[in-house]
Amino acid sequence: MSRADLAQNACTAARTIELFGDEWTLMILREMFLGGRRFDDLQRQTGASPHILSQRLKRLESIGVLRRETYSAHPPRHEYRLTEKGRDLWPVVVSMKLWGDKWLGHGVTPVEIIHKSCGRPVIPRMTCPDCSQPMAAHDARTRLSPEFETERSAAGRQT
Amino acid sequence: MSRADLAQNACTAARTIELFGDEWTLMILREMFLGGRRFDDLQRQTGASPHILSQRLKRLESIGVLRRETYSAHPPRHEYRLTEKGRDLWPVVVSMKLWGDKWLGHGVTPVEIIHKSCGRPVIPRMTCPDCSQPMAAHDARTRLSPEFETERSAAGRQT
Repeated sequence: MSRADLAQNACTAARTIELFGDEWTLMILREMFLGGRRFDDLQRQTGASPHILSQRLKRLESIGVLRRETYSAHPPRHEYRLTEKGRDLWPVVVSMKLWGDKWLGHGVTPVEIIHKSCGRPVIPRMTCPDCSQPMAAHDARTRLSPEFETERSAAGRQT
Repeated sequence: MSRADLAQNACTAARTIELFGDEWTLMILREMFLGGRRFDDLQRQTGASPHILSQRLKRLESIGVLRRETYSAHPPRHEYRLTEKGRDLWPVVVSMKLWGDKWLGHGVTPVEIIHKSCGRPVIPRMTCPDCSQPMAAHDARTRLSPEFETERSAAGRQT
């Protein structure tokens, strides 16, 4: 398997990028994390056209990242809620915000993140779950997992 | 200022999404974090056409996320390196990978992240820098920063 194949078929980063590497999709997720739930609100807040917004929301629903909930039967009205799968994208959106705060913000952070249990504005950071130290690019290296290598070998033997 | 204005003009998440909310750009960054440096390698590994790759690399260079370095004078050859600004995007790419591992990986993690100082594969996580607890969507709320509110008021008085 070449690295290109790995990227296209197995790499979970590549497949996530394929799903969410889109400006409108990320803007919708950002708005939903800020509390946006209704079509009109999401449209106003993202600046997306109704067609684009509708198409992206349908896609996010089909992936299982959000679900529609009816809040009025007459007239029929619904709103959008993030599922657990969707809420798990929080670190993606927060990482983009934090990068922007540092590199585009001119020293001013427009939106603060409050840790509910601390009650204070914080800058969440990536840390190692084993040693609790912050982790950045230079603290990490990557390797193909032994488990994945085994699965690949087994698949190879079957063909 | 409406929330739409905020999104378009001030929100650092929105502005980061504008820069990186693109499948090819994110794929290039992912490859560079895996060690890709040369045009041919990046092309093969991302599957991008030479035109698309060239255009995205120029854009990333103009933003200051990567720089070109000459590694051969005759014939002239260069490679691409992430700058500090670029390496700071590591949490964005890692967050996407971790989401994919959890929700698309069918229990197999193709690429492991090794914390160099621990020497073990780890799943980095977002934590609060104050209390060191892991942070997820439901642990956080957001507010406009007082600093930003003050700046907005001052700007309002000047007009």
